Amino acid sequence: MSNKLYDQYKAQLSKISDVSHSIAVLHWDKETYIPKKGIQRRAQQIATLSGIAHEMAISKDLGNLLVQLNEGNSLTENEKKNVAQSLKLYQKITKLSKDHVIKLSKTTSKAFHAWHKAKEAEDYSIFAPHMKEVVSLKREEAEMLGYDDHPYDALLDAYEAGEKSANLDKLFADVKAQLVDFVQEIAAKDQVAHDFMDQSFDKDAQWDLGIDLLQQMGYDFDKGRQDIAPHPFTTNFSADDVRVTTRIDEKNIANMIWSCIHEGGHALYEQGLLNENYGLPAGSAISLGIHESQSRLWENNVGRSRAYWQANFSNLQARFPQMAEVDTEAFYKACNLVKPSFIRTESDELTYHFHIMIRYEIEKGLIEGSIDAKDLPEIWAQKYKSYLGIEVPNHKMGVLQDVHWSHGSIGYFPTYSLGSFYAAQFYAQAAKDIPDLEEQIAAGNMLGLLAWLRENIHQYGQLYTAEELCVKISGEPLNFQYFMDYARAKYGDIYGLSA
Amino acid sequence: MSNKLYDQYKAQLSKISDVSHSIAVLHWDKETYIPKKGIQRRAQQIATLSGIAHEMAISKDLGNLLVQLNEGNSLTENEKKNVAQSLKLYQKITKLSKDHVIKLSKTTSKAFHAWHKAKEAEDYSIFAPHMKEVVSLKREEAEMLGYDDHPYDALLDAYEAGEKSANLDKLFADVKAQLVDFVQEIAAKDQVAHDFMDQSFDKDAQWDLGIDLLQQMGYDFDKGRQDIAPHPFTTNFSADDVRVTTRIDEKNIANMIWSCIHEGGHALYEQGLLNENYGLPAGSAISLGIHESQSRLWENNVGRSRAYWQANFSNLQARFPQMAEVDTEAFYKACNLVKPSFIRTESDELTYHFHIMIRYEIEKGLIEGSIDAKDLPEIWAQKYKSYLGIEVPNHKMGVLQDVHWSHGSIGYFPTYSLGSFYAAQFYAQAAKDIPDLEEQIAAGNMLGLLAWLRENIHQYGQLYTAEELCVKISGEPLNFQYFMDYARAKYGDIYGLSA
Repeated sequence: MSNKLYDQYKAQLSKISDVSHSIAVLHWDKETYIPKKGIQRRAQQIATLSGIAHEMAISKDLGNLLVQLNEGNSLTENEKKNVAQSLKLYQKITKLSKDHVIKLSKTTSKAFHAWHKAKEAEDYSIFAPHMKEVVSLKREEAEMLGYDDHPYDALLDAYEAGEKSANLDKLFADVKAQLVDFVQEIAAKDQVAHDFMDQSFDKDAQWDLGIDLLQQMGYDFDKGRQDIAPHPFTTNFSADDVRVTTRIDEKNIANMIWSCIHEGGHALYEQGLLNENYGLPAGSAISLGIHESQSRLWENNVGRSRAYWQANFSNLQARFPQMAEVDTEAFYKACNLVKPSFIRTESDELTYHFHIMIRYEIEKGLIEGSIDAKDLPEIWAQKYKSYLGIEVPNHKMGVLQDVHWSHGSIGYFPTYSLGSFYAAQFYAQAAKDIPDLEEQIAAGNMLGLLAWLRENIHQYGQLYTAEELCVKISGEPLNFQYFMDYARAKYGDIYGLSA
Repeated sequence: MSNKLYDQYKAQLSKISDVSHSIAVLHWDKETYIPKKGIQRRAQQIATLSGIAHEMAISKDLGNLLVQLNEGNSLTENEKKNVAQSLKLYQKITKLSKDHVIKLSKTTSKAFHAWHKAKEAEDYSIFAPHMKEVVSLKREEAEMLGYDDHPYDALLDAYEAGEKSANLDKLFADVKAQLVDFVQEIAAKDQVAHDFMDQSFDKDAQWDLGIDLLQQMGYDFDKGRQDIAPHPFTTNFSADDVRVTTRIDEKNIANMIWSCIHEGGHALYEQGLLNENYGLPAGSAISLGIHESQSRLWENNVGRSRAYWQANFSNLQARFPQMAEVDTEAFYKACNLVKPSFIRTESDELTYHFHIMIRYEIEKGLIEGSIDAKDLPEIWAQKYKSYLGIEVPNHKMGVLQDVHWSHGSIGYFPTYSLGSFYAAQFYAQAAKDIPDLEEQIAAGNMLGLLAWLRENIHQYGQLYTAEELCVKISGEPLNFQYFMDYARAKYGDIYGLSA
């Protein structure tokens, strides 16, 4: 009997996934191929399907089924985990009133347009009242969802299930205690040469190089494709159709290269989920932080390593004759330039975390009520001065640079740092488990690493929580020390710091 | 009060359209960009959305709303027409039992695979039992739907609302009485030269020429795009997003040219519907026959005319140097080669109608029970011998060439001929209303014709039936004589027949 119920549950989740993946197709097309005038109706079509998917996800039938299954005892361990995860999600989304969902959707839609206008005008005051309203709704949301210690935890959980602000406080205390000083040590040294990066790079050759890099990583083009989009992203319609996009700027080859590897890392995770678990928690990524660990691991731990460019620099040189005189070591150093800057998405892999820390501190303050939305530009400027030592020139390059808050995404930013920190911890373990990992990479063989990721991470989906997975892999929960060790070894060498 | 109900009705239809257009996006992607292994889950996603759209379309709420609105009397004329059309459709689809819909879907899914296998193997016997089952279900369907005179009418109505087999019988009697003889007259004459068509034509240059031709027709690339697909088609996600696809074969430039113009004609119809009528009958094409009239008018009446190539041949020559020695008149004649052949989709615009007539006679016989599915190859061969004078070499080039029956599409084929016949009648009227139409076309100006089509046909959607529209435009219902007059004038000239 229970198996029949479990089959019903699987069928219902599969249908919900069909709708949500269809929404993803509509989005993908909107970002890649849609003709100019088709956008308006497309937004309406996406809204209609989203409404249908939401109704399916909160249906009483599904709720009853989940409760029944959860109370039964004829399920396998993995089946139990799936049901428990689904029930947790169901209870969470049904805690939000329909009124709230509609109000938030309307508010963020207006906030997004206001943010856009404010950014163009470099004037935060245009966005401020909308930000205030978004924060107020998100505070209400935290109360509806409930929490033990801090209201921020209720919001964080949507992006990083099980993560707590108490833990983030500790992590960012480590960042402050160790990384701020380390970056200052680097700043005192001579800057690495990077003028050869500021050239013009043929677009077609960039595209071809990107495809080569994806192929080398083991990205399966029978289960995906790359297209051009204004803001690179990865999307999946099943584990057998995982697509990446890239942007190509003739003046900025770095942008294409590491965005391509980054999205490729996300895509390998999705391609590594088991297609048989379509629609189930076991067939879905654990959290944004774990997702980001996969993109960052490939982008930074691999894609900005000396070994990686030992393998790939001759390909790059063959495609761009203007790089003929540059040597591999110089290129390796240039792609690891560390320099405080204003824009998060353009920052290096060390100072990046100051950008996140600032956003985290602000978000937490907004949600607990210790910061008022109207004061953000001043607080922003003050924190950038204090952590990065730079004076923010305007709101566009400051508090208005990111779209997230206008979407109501509060609690999202920390997952970016979590991603890098998990990546360092996972990569350290992979290097232990594969003694010649660096040699493999230097020889252009990335498949040993991919197999390790598949086996240790990808295949499980949500059968483990982020913390369980981290302990399973490395024997301990997330520990910032791995990142710091990686940073010290790599950048100490590049910048000639004493160990 | 009634207006509030009408708004509800519009909102419901708009939502149904959102879902059905989303399905169209999933299909479009499946035919253009999907990676190989993504196809299986995509089929499932399409099935799920189709089920949702169907549930919405047969919902009791919608039915009640339609009955209430139809009985009320505070609507405008156009609102009344919309409601009446929606109610008619609602009553029709709710006549089919859920059992039947599911059974048909399963049967045709198997039949399609069997057809594919049978075609590969050139062996109809593999497909025969499936065809028998499809026919049996379609006969049941005709009984469920109901009809006055002939069960075939019930099926025909799904593709060509209001059309009757009694009328088709008359049309095809005219085809037999006049067109068969005329084609024999042509066959007795010397064949036009066409060897210069059998060359290799650069693919990129073909693509560019196709884009030029679409642009010249007035196809709006801000509301659409062209992509490559194995079987060219047109699809629309709103009047503001209407996409065409084409196939490019280096060895067959004719294929690209007239397929491009044909799909362009379909697309102009969809782009000419009013976006404000999104989801309503007034925002939807009348019937397949009227749709096909738009593609055929552009493909044949325009795109195979002397004037058209006076405008465009120099562009073609500039793109294909191997055509430098060919003159416009020779090219015009070559693209109007008339020659009996086996494959419907590759036939000329005259013998094409024999292919349709044969399918129509067979379909009617299957549905009334006078023909048994197992006998199709013999009947097929006999009719091709009799109407086209050719011996069918195998089942693949005969009875298995078309996919339609395996999909359960019985009643569809006649709309292809109706399209050509309507096209001739409409074009004759356009030529009366625009005295210098031929000169405009010869000068490369197609926009006068497009404006005429927009004004007389496109803007109305289903506010008129096919017959009402035809009478409104030309003063009489569909009359085969227009096609025959067009054929005699054009081909009499090309082949030097006495008038």
